[in-house]
Amino acid sequence: MIPAGFSFAAVNAGVKSPEVTRDDMALVVCDHEALLVGAFTRNVVKAAPVLIGREQVQRGTARAVVINAGNANACTGSRGLDDARAVMRAVAGKIGCAGDQVVPLSTGVIGVPLPVERMTAAAPRLAAELGPELEPCARAILTTDTCSKIASRKAGDARVVGFAKGSGMISPDMATTLAVVLTDAKMTREQLDKALHDALETSFNAVTVDGDTSTNDTLLVLSSGEVDADVEACAKAIGEVITDLALMVVRDGEGATKLVRIDVTGTVDRTEAKRVAMTVANSPLVKTAFFGEDPNWGRIMAAAGRSGVAFDPSAVAIRIAGHEVVRDGCEAPGYVEADVHRAFQEKEISLEIALGDGPGSFTVWTTDLSHGYVDINADYRT
Amino acid sequence: MIPAGFSFAAVNAGVKSPEVTRDDMALVVCDHEALLVGAFTRNVVKAAPVLIGREQVQRGTARAVVINAGNANACTGSRGLDDARAVMRAVAGKIGCAGDQVVPLSTGVIGVPLPVERMTAAAPRLAAELGPELEPCARAILTTDTCSKIASRKAGDARVVGFAKGSGMISPDMATTLAVVLTDAKMTREQLDKALHDALETSFNAVTVDGDTSTNDTLLVLSSGEVDADVEACAKAIGEVITDLALMVVRDGEGATKLVRIDVTGTVDRTEAKRVAMTVANSPLVKTAFFGEDPNWGRIMAAAGRSGVAFDPSAVAIRIAGHEVVRDGCEAPGYVEADVHRAFQEKEISLEIALGDGPGSFTVWTTDLSHGYVDINADYRT
Repeated sequence: MIPAGFSFAAVNAGVKSPEVTRDDMALVVCDHEALLVGAFTRNVVKAAPVLIGREQVQRGTARAVVINAGNANACTGSRGLDDARAVMRAVAGKIGCAGDQVVPLSTGVIGVPLPVERMTAAAPRLAAELGPELEPCARAILTTDTCSKIASRKAGDARVVGFAKGSGMISPDMATTLAVVLTDAKMTREQLDKALHDALETSFNAVTVDGDTSTNDTLLVLSSGEVDADVEACAKAIGEVITDLALMVVRDGEGATKLVRIDVTGTVDRTEAKRVAMTVANSPLVKTAFFGEDPNWGRIMAAAGRSGVAFDPSAVAIRIAGHEVVRDGCEAPGYVEADVHRAFQEKEISLEIALGDGPGSFTVWTTDLSHGYVDINADYRT
Repeated sequence: MIPAGFSFAAVNAGVKSPEVTRDDMALVVCDHEALLVGAFTRNVVKAAPVLIGREQVQRGTARAVVINAGNANACTGSRGLDDARAVMRAVAGKIGCAGDQVVPLSTGVIGVPLPVERMTAAAPRLAAELGPELEPCARAILTTDTCSKIASRKAGDARVVGFAKGSGMISPDMATTLAVVLTDAKMTREQLDKALHDALETSFNAVTVDGDTSTNDTLLVLSSGEVDADVEACAKAIGEVITDLALMVVRDGEGATKLVRIDVTGTVDRTEAKRVAMTVANSPLVKTAFFGEDPNWGRIMAAAGRSGVAFDPSAVAIRIAGHEVVRDGCEAPGYVEADVHRAFQEKEISLEIALGDGPGSFTVWTTDLSHGYVDINADYRT
């Protein structure tokens, strides 16, 4: 499963506090310089590792990725940059490369300085632990996630593997989405970058748990370039791994009891379809109706109507789990609520909203809004 | 308290079901033709009474307002318009005016046809009940509200009284905001309209419980014109009544345990300030932190950062309940979390976000996101 050239390590560095005993620091190393592409949060408030990582992606190569949970290193000013670089240097010293060849990723509480001494002290142990096991590494970067998230594909002899964390897709305090995808496929940086961005819009940019974009969201793709394989097949494999990871993140959404797929069609363009789908997906009233297993379609109509997209309400059609619920903007003739209520009791629910006959369409995945979400986020820092 | 010329009634019409025994239909009548101005939801999906009411406001006069809880008469197609007009005619027949002089307002479940027969049958009882008592009328229009909402002012000899319902400010299934303001001040329609719109942007358009704009939101102002008084003082009184009602609505937000005032300053203009304030106010992570009494200021920074408004993160200052929490985008020197934690235990919390030195500012009021909100909205229709 593991692409040629990469090795992994995870240790307990006590990032959040010295009392924490779980692994919370992870390292991915490539034997030699790997090609690097990436995408970062569009939040105006960017964590220190995002500011550093963007420059590294512009240069386009890296030897390693060092990741910590328990602290986002965001809103920490110039000290945050210094702290991240100290950790990068400590790791670089152990694996034999320049500090700026180590990409830093952080996730956790915003506004607290990194415990640099505990983290640099962990660097020798990380280097000593390096081996072929990805799973401990994927586990070490989790926060409120309930499970580790790993996806893989083959494309000819080339391999692609990715791991991610995130439980709110995007939520500024802990469920920051981080994803690292590794491949040994021999591809150019441009080909890797295209594979990443082709997949991004319909994967990580198409899932939402709570609408809260993080300060730390980062998706990296690294290639060791050791295996010759069909570039198109490799690009497809990379896209599938990215999509798998995005769905794993939303499926593990904070407090989620349902996975909801929302297909919007018939708008002027894809941007409008996405806007409607995201408004419905983030509506607290739609989300609580999913949690309550109540097929309250009026809330879906009302959320679509407030999205800012113009449409003719009397042309709207809605299907839930394949059942026709709304036709011409009103309850469909022959609608049987009991059928749809049964569909709402499933763990996965499909919602199709047709707004007209335009060519625009978009699909978003989301979760319900449950007591679990309130519990997790009312008590997060304690 | 009651402006000259108006009388009131409330009866049980069994709108949601014949088993409901509380009053759910209300009537306000002016002895003669009153001037009418109003503002309506900007949701693309508009309930039948909104479509009718907008035309009535364009004509500019009315004799009565008939209001029901338990059914929004939204997403009911042309039948919804016919149903509303049947109720208007039944009331008009009893008070002696044309049907289109009766303004209909509805709130409740979306997508279910009005029980027209039960409602027209209630018209004679409503007419017979007419009297000077506003309170039963204000109570009859409530849905998930926990208390009736009445505000009043005097301006010289003129009186202004208003009543409202709403518990999500704006939420498509039940907490639809309806507000009716009555005055006997002799003012022109233009003066009334200006008073309404001057107040609207900083009152109802500045509160949010869940960001879900309803299909039925309506604010009406009617004047009997029986009392000569200083027009400016009357306009001010109308604005204050509207603001009082808006704050009552947000204070009674579904499941709310906190009232949060958010002042954003320093943006390029007021529109940007409002956008930041609304993004922070509707962030599920900020709202759950308020519920959890956790002064997690990183979530406030992150929500502001995803609002779509450009600003320099290193220039941000945040004060909570007067305490300096963030300076230059990082935790303020001398910040004592225990002080702010104490402030978070109060019922009302003030949050000031300064984003730069631009002239733009805006104030929004909101609530926390609690288990009560999830309970109310998971089970709403049962």
